[in-house]
Amino acid sequence: MVYFFTNLLGTFLLDEHLRIVEELLFKSVQDYLKKETAEKKLWKTNPSMKPLPLEKLPQVLALFRDQKYFTSFYQKNLELTRQALRDSVSEDQLIIQAIANISEIDKVINLLCKRLREWYGWYLPELSEATINNEQFLSLVMEKKKEELLKDLSLKETMGAELDTIHVEEMLSLAQETLHFYSLRKKHEGYLQKVMQKYCPNLLELAGVTIGAKLIELGRSLKHLALLPSSTIQLLGAEKALFRHIKTGSRPPKYGVILGHQLVQKAARDEKGKAARMLADKLSLCCRLDYFKGEFKAKEYRKELEEKIK
Amino acid sequence: MVYFFTNLLGTFLLDEHLRIVEELLFKSVQDYLKKETAEKKLWKTNPSMKPLPLEKLPQVLALFRDQKYFTSFYQKNLELTRQALRDSVSEDQLIIQAIANISEIDKVINLLCKRLREWYGWYLPELSEATINNEQFLSLVMEKKKEELLKDLSLKETMGAELDTIHVEEMLSLAQETLHFYSLRKKHEGYLQKVMQKYCPNLLELAGVTIGAKLIELGRSLKHLALLPSSTIQLLGAEKALFRHIKTGSRPPKYGVILGHQLVQKAARDEKGKAARMLADKLSLCCRLDYFKGEFKAKEYRKELEEKIK
Repeated sequence: MVYFFTNLLGTFLLDEHLRIVEELLFKSVQDYLKKETAEKKLWKTNPSMKPLPLEKLPQVLALFRDQKYFTSFYQKNLELTRQALRDSVSEDQLIIQAIANISEIDKVINLLCKRLREWYGWYLPELSEATINNEQFLSLVMEKKKEELLKDLSLKETMGAELDTIHVEEMLSLAQETLHFYSLRKKHEGYLQKVMQKYCPNLLELAGVTIGAKLIELGRSLKHLALLPSSTIQLLGAEKALFRHIKTGSRPPKYGVILGHQLVQKAARDEKGKAARMLADKLSLCCRLDYFKGEFKAKEYRKELEEKIK
Repeated sequence: MVYFFTNLLGTFLLDEHLRIVEELLFKSVQDYLKKETAEKKLWKTNPSMKPLPLEKLPQVLALFRDQKYFTSFYQKNLELTRQALRDSVSEDQLIIQAIANISEIDKVINLLCKRLREWYGWYLPELSEATINNEQFLSLVMEKKKEELLKDLSLKETMGAELDTIHVEEMLSLAQETLHFYSLRKKHEGYLQKVMQKYCPNLLELAGVTIGAKLIELGRSLKHLALLPSSTIQLLGAEKALFRHIKTGSRPPKYGVILGHQLVQKAARDEKGKAARMLADKLSLCCRLDYFKGEFKAKEYRKELEEKIK
């Protein structure tokens, strides 16, 4: 009667007194992960061997309490952890980081534009009033001179001060750096598009880059998102309003981040809730298709929704 | 008996019945601001004229209530306001904007570095732990490849994942944009140096660029700063702690933004309060010298302080 037993170090053949009679040591963690091959090899020479019964396990484990095994256990364990950590980095994490950085960039752009509007206001206050869009404001500041801007605004004079070039140049440097952030934002979006095209084409097609990535961020991973009911997907990003509703009985939220979706935006005011529900339904299906590597159906879904929501 | 009377529109000569007999209309606001020249011109032909006595003013003002003056009053007033607004933009405002933007930039850099450290952590977590300085971290990320960095850290393997270039590139773009902000910060500092060299050389010499500009920001202008007692200058930037002290009787603050000054930093722990007080004293003198266009004494002050604080 012989038993076999496998741990991190290798596969061991034990006799009836539970002494090691043969061993196949693993060279790397890879071997451990494919332990079946080692076990099969052992089985070829010992076709009568059986797996170790559970009640005898404590006795065998005691064998490995020997100090000589300590370093190899430690190293193998470390390597295994490292491997596990490495494997845990999936597209999810990268998508989450990129979309989180897009939010960060939006914050930064707002902060800097506010400052520039105030600063530039000493020079040409009329421009800030006339240009609400931040990106447009920045380009105008960068590209045109005061005289041209005054002409564009059909003004003869400005309320602002005459400033030397040295002062204006500082504002221009700030405007330029801030404009760079718009390019970085676009670059990140392009990157997300590429990554999601492979990783979750259905979600990408139906939700779009930003909303799709935000859903993954809020759901923490595509897997988790695929397991969520569609009603939860509908409300992702509206947690504050949802818990306020539960606590105080205020009106429940109708939508979270999908509020920004074209289909919800286009819907009539009293149909928005319905549109959000239908969209969340299909988004949930998309997540499942993507996670379980199903076919590409998002285009059909989109058509279906577009017909229903009019 | 003739009187003369001047308002926004011009200088007027009035007879004893307070009728206008002669007028010198102003062409622009500039003329009004130099009204003495017009009055002198009138006086040459009418050497007997006297300024209008106060009790007769209501009668004369009634003359100008005529509708025909309305538009010119409106225009002249507008121009005068515009002029006043323009003149109100002094170096103070520009310094305040630049130093406020430096604070903003610091915030932005922190925000983006935090994000990059997290993001890059999926790829090479060991670097972030080993490099505390943000600027150094960014340069390393930009300049060196994973293999070189591992060698520098004397590591064989990383806990991070193997990532394709497409993923790493996004992190590099972020690092690059963030590094740009360090250059912008330095540019702003150089600009402040130049502006303050002319505007407040004493303050600049004794306080340094950043602290000097922050004092102007907190004092709202050099003029206001010059009028503050030195004890207030000592505590500028510690308003929160000061009011907590007044309200709750907690320990009073010893210093505000001047805490960062070399002289206070170098002082022994139980001498910091004293050093801050002496420094604030001299800073207050510097502000007054600068505001009233006095001589350059900051270097002497610095020497004096350096000898006293040891």
